[in-house]
Amino acid sequence: MTLTVVGSIGIDTVETPFGKAEDVPGGSALYFSLAASHFTKVQVAANLGTDFPEQAWDPVRKRGADLSGLRVFEDQNTFRWSGSYAGNMNEAETLLTELNVLAEPPVVPEAYQGSAFAFLANMGTDVQLRMLEELKADLVFADTMNLWIETQRENLDELLTKIDGFILNDAEARMLTGETNLIRAGGALLEMGPKVVVLKKGEHGAFLFTNDFHFALPSYPTARVVDPTGAGDSFAGGFLGSLAEMGDLTPENLRRAMAYGTVAASMTVEEFSTKGLSNCDRGALDNRFEELCNFVRI
Amino acid sequence: MTLTVVGSIGIDTVETPFGKAEDVPGGSALYFSLAASHFTKVQVAANLGTDFPEQAWDPVRKRGADLSGLRVFEDQNTFRWSGSYAGNMNEAETLLTELNVLAEPPVVPEAYQGSAFAFLANMGTDVQLRMLEELKADLVFADTMNLWIETQRENLDELLTKIDGFILNDAEARMLTGETNLIRAGGALLEMGPKVVVLKKGEHGAFLFTNDFHFALPSYPTARVVDPTGAGDSFAGGFLGSLAEMGDLTPENLRRAMAYGTVAASMTVEEFSTKGLSNCDRGALDNRFEELCNFVRI
Repeated sequence: MTLTVVGSIGIDTVETPFGKAEDVPGGSALYFSLAASHFTKVQVAANLGTDFPEQAWDPVRKRGADLSGLRVFEDQNTFRWSGSYAGNMNEAETLLTELNVLAEPPVVPEAYQGSAFAFLANMGTDVQLRMLEELKADLVFADTMNLWIETQRENLDELLTKIDGFILNDAEARMLTGETNLIRAGGALLEMGPKVVVLKKGEHGAFLFTNDFHFALPSYPTARVVDPTGAGDSFAGGFLGSLAEMGDLTPENLRRAMAYGTVAASMTVEEFSTKGLSNCDRGALDNRFEELCNFVRI
Repeated sequence: MTLTVVGSIGIDTVETPFGKAEDVPGGSALYFSLAASHFTKVQVAANLGTDFPEQAWDPVRKRGADLSGLRVFEDQNTFRWSGSYAGNMNEAETLLTELNVLAEPPVVPEAYQGSAFAFLANMGTDVQLRMLEELKADLVFADTMNLWIETQRENLDELLTKIDGFILNDAEARMLTGETNLIRAGGALLEMGPKVVVLKKGEHGAFLFTNDFHFALPSYPTARVVDPTGAGDSFAGGFLGSLAEMGDLTPENLRRAMAYGTVAASMTVEEFSTKGLSNCDRGALDNRFEELCNFVRI
């Protein structure tokens, strides 16, 4: 089934204890579609400038994605982000943000409308609400960040009543619900509207909450975390991509999708930028899926 | 099979966002044996004063434990600890420590010698080495803490070559190995000697490392964490108690034991002091074991 993603494209500069990567491809829409395109047909809508390296899309294009929603601004630069990670690398310190082409909202091509699945990556909640209307997708999942929780709370409350699934991290869940305990936070988020809540905890794995069951998974046991940038969007891509491949949201499929999200994120964190997900194939993802199943089997 | 524990008994004063408990029973040997005695015959060796409330041992005694190794000092007070927890309660701030009867090492009764399983709870590593000699147990697991990693590193290196299993938390594992990545830390700990390494991560669950396989489990999804004191020792008690009941260290048994450790810890954190583990029965533990299996099943 077709999966549409609306999000950002970025040129990142990242420093971690393992080195520095300057002016490398990034952004939620790129990480998401690199992961999701391993599983299903992806349609991407996002803004970029002519300074963005075109070849970064090659793996996504090769896996059959529709990139007609990439809107290239001739006279502006791509969004730029610079950050550094220290210690256990659970959180980045942002050193620089240049909005550039992100000042304009993305445009959803008519041909993208009505897709079975859609993902609204982290963007201003007002833009997410508008994209939601334009997409007319059957099942919509969304992400957010602390900035919008603080500045667009009313919009976010409205969005949560209109989407099917919500994907966020532990700090955001605590901020949004006021609950320190993540199990309580998960329950509170379900009450805000979405039928499915995915709560990501970085190196500590992820929770899934529905009104019927809860599920938890540790992160894939990689001994090599080089750069966590994009891990969350890769998770969302593996999760929704494999869900779109399986077709519906049964408990069984949701559990398997959580494992594929985990595996996709593991590929990303092992290399700088998008190298991990660009270079791997479906077989490598499936192998890690099996390893992960064995890792948690009681 | 018989399981001997050597550790501490304490009178604790604990403050958490959920309230305050003053002068309540605690200590590693008490939490451990409250958990382990649900599964197997436990023998306890520890020092205490006449100020310790005798009835705190009732549940352990009722479950068939041998308490002849409890050494009561007529003229001294029980070890006292006071601490407070804030935020997500992953770490206590210690407000007061009075060593009292812990200035003397415990004494292992002759009748305890040669038990199938033994646990050396957190004590000075020099004392653990002496207890190890006295116990003459078949399979010995040990815990430690940051203080001994800093001050008794040589003793600890020796201990690790002599024990079968090592149970510690994430901060201790990082400190001891110098590895930030916990998967690498687990590997480094195995190289130090023990065949089994259990790495506890508080609310984020626990890892198990052996040379044949790795295993991960999230914590039990409780929405009610009132007081984390004793959770680690309860985990060790549920883990080793159920292992002693099952009899040997097959991968299957180690995985199940991790789940019983997790379940025992969940009982402890839901109440102040030892109330949770004192009041529950084996059926409640088994129910949570099944729930946990379902929680992580892919």
